[in-house]
Amino acid sequence: MKGKIILEEAFNLPRLAEEEAKQYASVHGALLLGKALADIEGRVAAMDEAGVEMQVLSLTSPGCQGVSDPVEAQKMAVESNNYIAEKVKANPSRFAAFAAVSMHDPKRAAEELSRAVIELGCVGVMLNDFQSSGLDGNTTLFYDNPSYDIFWATVEELDVLVYMHPRLASKTVFNELYRDRKWLQASAWGFANQLSIHILGIATSGVFDRFPGVQLAFGHMGEHIPFDLWRIDHKLDRDRFPDMQMAKNRTIRDYFATNMHITTSGHFSTRSLQGAIAELSTSRIMFSIDYPYEDGLMEGSSWFDGLPISQPDLLAIGRENALRLLKLNRAPHNLKPGLSLKELEVGGLGALLSFAFA
Amino acid sequence: MKGKIILEEAFNLPRLAEEEAKQYASVHGALLLGKALADIEGRVAAMDEAGVEMQVLSLTSPGCQGVSDPVEAQKMAVESNNYIAEKVKANPSRFAAFAAVSMHDPKRAAEELSRAVIELGCVGVMLNDFQSSGLDGNTTLFYDNPSYDIFWATVEELDVLVYMHPRLASKTVFNELYRDRKWLQASAWGFANQLSIHILGIATSGVFDRFPGVQLAFGHMGEHIPFDLWRIDHKLDRDRFPDMQMAKNRTIRDYFATNMHITTSGHFSTRSLQGAIAELSTSRIMFSIDYPYEDGLMEGSSWFDGLPISQPDLLAIGRENALRLLKLNRAPHNLKPGLSLKELEVGGLGALLSFAFA
Amino acid sequence: MKGKIILEEAFNLPRLAEEEAKQYASVHGALLLGKALADIEGRVAAMDEAGVEMQVLSLTSPGCQGVSDPVEAQKMAVESNNYIAEKVKANPSRFAAFAAVSMHDPKRAAEELSRAVIELGCVGVMLNDFQSSGLDGNTTLFYDNPSYDIFWATVEELDVLVYMHPRLASKTVFNELYRDRKWLQASAWGFANQLSIHILGIATSGVFDRFPGVQLAFGHMGEHIPFDLWRIDHKLDRDRFPDMQMAKNRTIRDYFATNMHITTSGHFSTRSLQGAIAELSTSRIMFSIDYPYEDGLMEGSSWFDGLPISQPDLLAIGRENALRLLKLNRAPHNLKPGLSLKELEVGGLGALLSFAFA
Amino acid sequence: MKGKIILEEAFNLPRLAEEEAKQYASVHGALLLGKALADIEGRVAAMDEAGVEMQVLSLTSPGCQGVSDPVEAQKMAVESNNYIAEKVKANPSRFAAFAAVSMHDPKRAAEELSRAVIELGCVGVMLNDFQSSGLDGNTTLFYDNPSYDIFWATVEELDVLVYMHPRLASKTVFNELYRDRKWLQASAWGFANQLSIHILGIATSGVFDRFPGVQLAFGHMGEHIPFDLWRIDHKLDRDRFPDMQMAKNRTIRDYFATNMHITTSGHFSTRSLQGAIAELSTSRIMFSIDYPYEDGLMEGSSWFDGLPISQPDLLAIGRENALRLLKLNRAPHNLKPGLSLKELEVGGLGALLSFAFA
Repeated sequence: MKGKIILEEAFNLPRLAEEEAKQYASVHGALLLGKALADIEGRVAAMDEAGVEMQVLSLTSPGCQGVSDPVEAQKMAVESNNYIAEKVKANPSRFAAFAAVSMHDPKRAAEELSRAVIELGCVGVMLNDFQSSGLDGNTTLFYDNPSYDIFWATVEELDVLVYMHPRLASKTVFNELYRDRKWLQASAWGFANQLSIHILGIATSGVFDRFPGVQLAFGHMGEHIPFDLWRIDHKLDRDRFPDMQMAKNRTIRDYFATNMHITTSGHFSTRSLQGAIAELSTSRIMFSIDYPYEDGLMEGSSWFDGLPISQPDLLAIGRENALRLLKLNRAPHNLKPGLSLKELEVGGLGALLSFAFA
Repeated sequence: MKGKIILEEAFNLPRLAEEEAKQYASVHGALLLGKALADIEGRVAAMDEAGVEMQVLSLTSPGCQGVSDPVEAQKMAVESNNYIAEKVKANPSRFAAFAAVSMHDPKRAAEELSRAVIELGCVGVMLNDFQSSGLDGNTTLFYDNPSYDIFWATVEELDVLVYMHPRLASKTVFNELYRDRKWLQASAWGFANQLSIHILGIATSGVFDRFPGVQLAFGHMGEHIPFDLWRIDHKLDRDRFPDMQMAKNRTIRDYFATNMHITTSGHFSTRSLQGAIAELSTSRIMFSIDYPYEDGLMEGSSWFDGLPISQPDLLAIGRENALRLLKLNRAPHNLKPGLSLKELEVGGLGALLSFAFA
Repeated sequence: MKGKIILEEAFNLPRLAEEEAKQYASVHGALLLGKALADIEGRVAAMDEAGVEMQVLSLTSPGCQGVSDPVEAQKMAVESNNYIAEKVKANPSRFAAFAAVSMHDPKRAAEELSRAVIELGCVGVMLNDFQSSGLDGNTTLFYDNPSYDIFWATVEELDVLVYMHPRLASKTVFNELYRDRKWLQASAWGFANQLSIHILGIATSGVFDRFPGVQLAFGHMGEHIPFDLWRIDHKLDRDRFPDMQMAKNRTIRDYFATNMHITTSGHFSTRSLQGAIAELSTSRIMFSIDYPYEDGLMEGSSWFDGLPISQPDLLAIGRENALRLLKLNRAPHNLKPGLSLKELEVGGLGALLSFAFA
Repeated sequence: MKGKIILEEAFNLPRLAEEEAKQYASVHGALLLGKALADIEGRVAAMDEAGVEMQVLSLTSPGCQGVSDPVEAQKMAVESNNYIAEKVKANPSRFAAFAAVSMHDPKRAAEELSRAVIELGCVGVMLNDFQSSGLDGNTTLFYDNPSYDIFWATVEELDVLVYMHPRLASKTVFNELYRDRKWLQASAWGFANQLSIHILGIATSGVFDRFPGVQLAFGHMGEHIPFDLWRIDHKLDRDRFPDMQMAKNRTIRDYFATNMHITTSGHFSTRSLQGAIAELSTSRIMFSIDYPYEDGLMEGSSWFDGLPISQPDLLAIGRENALRLLKLNRAPHNLKPGLSLKELEVGGLGALLSFAFA
């Protein structure tokens, strides 16, 4: 399929890339990953090959959320937003960006988000789970705290997407739960374990009731949440939890029809996607890769293009939903909505012969 | 769910109702069925109870298609269209109608369809499989014959839905295949067996290529077709069948994304619906009952309202798709598009407690 | 996956192969198909490559069912059974056979089946839909007629599988339904349309009630039946059809749990298989190819090996169900039941890397 | 469906029941829950009504795992096992039991398990997540530590099921993650979040490789794990995590085919069950309720009996899997394997009329 849009795709500031690369040195090879994170112009060829028209870029995790000093975190946000805005400006038909913000101070976060959206053209904001804070960096700030209402109010007013991305657990949680099984702390399990609490915290604290225009997305096929919706709602007994702020007559399932979206980043599983479609509908799911933490764009794109799902669903998940939600039809991106199966090279005898949609 | 729209719902001309009732005398009780078919005003209470806002009415099968005399068939079409237009006019917020047409002569069929749509406000046309013809009534006319292009051209120009409905097989086919197992000839199996050939004939004859605006719907979860899409396309080998008129690079699956729709009439099966969603997407499926051949509206409506499918899908299948396809937002029907979950009473704690969406 | 068993695989008597090949001359190339049908020993290399341990062979359709002269049909059955028994004897760890029988006379059919099973070691019988009969060949015999009870009684006593295979419709049906759309008459649609009536006829005539041990299989993902089970049972209203012989308290769905099985032959569709699993369970589904009407064994085998279904289901559908149902663990076949994932090369890191089970 | 077996069903020692009841005082009403937990004989009437033949009982969570003093924990295990053995003895055709063990000392845990199985007839053991330990009770012991190999060796030798049940997180984790959103700490989310780490720790530490006979079950539709299988295996990169002990060529998915099982306890969601079947197959899933934390047996049983899954799958999940895995066909339980659809009252016209299996 041509014309795909992907939206959990990381970059790094060149000066940080080397550092970041070192952190994962033992994993993918530090230099390689660092180089991939820092390179933006060079991505276009792989996008062409994989049928990806647009990549929405964001500063790699934990970004500002990992900086416990408020001044440094704010500085990083401004630097990152200015930097990526220039990159997008150079090729707006292929790139867009999510803003980075320091979440130490909700009001300043809202201000930087406003600047990034209004002045720089960012189409949303990427939050990497909790904000590290405190002198030792071990304090954790969560955005379901009522003090963040000013941030959510600004999000609603700006009408842009908030994308929640995972990061490693705090030292305290790590020591208790992951120290003796380190391989579970990150993308295999702990990432979603941690982030899901934050997401459900936001929903159950009533953010979507107070700010009904807020749209929240998260990746990795929903961070464990879609497949447990019945049990979550069944167990959030209103009589049992009178302190829970969420509207009395609403359920987490309801919010998935009005305020929440998921992406396929790093989770190229046919059955999980089919399950997510059954729970949420294709209107709330968007294709994404998680580049460069996934090796290139082809593995995920090949999986997606050959999925046993309907053609209208392929178009919605692969392109239309993101185009509409991020308003990518507007200048300077100017993506075309409503392209046909033929224009996007979906279906036809070729698909049949290559066994796609089997 | 409130606000549902149903579209394979039969009526009969009062003068024909008794006759029709007799035909099914041994089944549901002739008088009862005849009465139900002839009564239109009386349906509103049951619609209210079942959460059905709008019922699209059509002359019960075989209607004009069962009348082998062209003059009589044409007379019945005109009579039926005039009659039902009056009924709709009396309550346009609750009723709409599909036209009846005699298909003996494609040109006259197109003319009566035009009259029914333009002058009488019909939102589409119901065709009951093949047209019986000939002196002995045993000749069968199918609309994939090139002579019907004038009819399809008019359909495209009028931009209205064609709904294909089953009828009993011809005597010849009955004698060979169903005589010794009569119970299989009708709704249990033979209906779909016969109608599916006609539908696939229309698609493979290139009607959708020559008239890309034509929209075709059929009920009973797709008359066996959606679940065999892969095999159909796999076996319609272009080298093997050079006479097949359908565009060389298109597949039946493709047409389901551009020209074909199904309804749930008389097929209240969760798994079949889930399978149809997987093959076609929720954008091509519409809720329907098949009243009064199904007993009342509640059985099908209860099934639908409690389906384990997502809330956006429930709204699409139960209301939005039909509203958009039939343009029921226009006068005199004036149905409101885009109603919220809350306005349509979908979701919330009530749904959870009643175990809906489980 | 190693160790797969396939069971809708055709052969032809060398003397008939050329003739058969001519019939499909315009399709796959007559000589090629004829050669493939006649060659048995040469199949082993392709089986090795595709991970197929065992192929159950049957005389290609219509076989004896296409021979309207009872004497000729009987002769063909005997000849075919003797011939294939020799082939199996030469390589019993890789081949088994279904018997061919003339169905003109139920008693003689039972006798030849007994001989083929007891003396020649056939593991079941292949019936190619109705038996052509009569001087002009246009009479059609169906096995739901009570006169065939003697045949079903023998099947039950021998405890072997009956596999129902499609064939082209009779001239009468062809002329009425397929003449103007010939491409629909065979594997794309008509095959299943016809055969499904015969299968449902057998079920509704009470064969499984009178002979509860009878096990019936059919291919092509169930010949349209599994996906309409709810509607079939819903519409086989007992009050409406007092003549229907099937037990009053049973449904077609029930028989799928006790007497009926399907295979994947020629229908390599992930969604259709998922739907069939939902309706029937993996315990009633068996992998098959439909060689040589499908091009080789690799296309279907690759599809199967990479299916997004669970490993236990893969083993059941790919091997265990057929092994148990056909008792292939017995001499001379001696297939091993209960092989592990590792022995069958299912799962492991390799599967993950090759994106199987995605 | 008659004859169902359920296996995550709690009891309490009468002397502890009141205390436990107080803990949940604000929830279900302390006295009511305490009474339900302590009452065993009184359960039979509700079991009869719900079609439950057998209930496997276990000491309610956290049981011995919540007792940080090793001597007290051991005392509780012995007391509980002796108590419940008497109850089972009084009605072995309706009740069986999982042992309780103190997990402070792996060797003593193994000894008490042996005694409970061999002398008292327990059919497995229930472990409530980590063992609280240390003077302040804040030390947490996990059973993927190599010191527990002696316990797993005994489990394998005894050939009994280990059922992993959730409990509340430690104070440390609670303070960091759940204090400001308490409603998420228990059954709605935190339970599974915590327990899943423990389960994946056991699998990735190589317990199933060193003790291939170990069978592990867990409830609530798999504690978030089945729906993320692809991503887990995709991210447990062997090059990246050389310290991970699990066999190099195996995946978590593989263990679900050989060593792990899930139940439906407290998670009566049709779509989640369908998803779990797709990932694991029905052979690894067992029906359960989570009584009395779910209100009675009827809600879950009605959901189960009317599920849109096949009849063979209903029998497997509702009865046969547990019967076989726990060897409940043996004395003193003597449950009958292989009962028919009719004997278990599954299927038939009644099911159809009541819209079950729709």
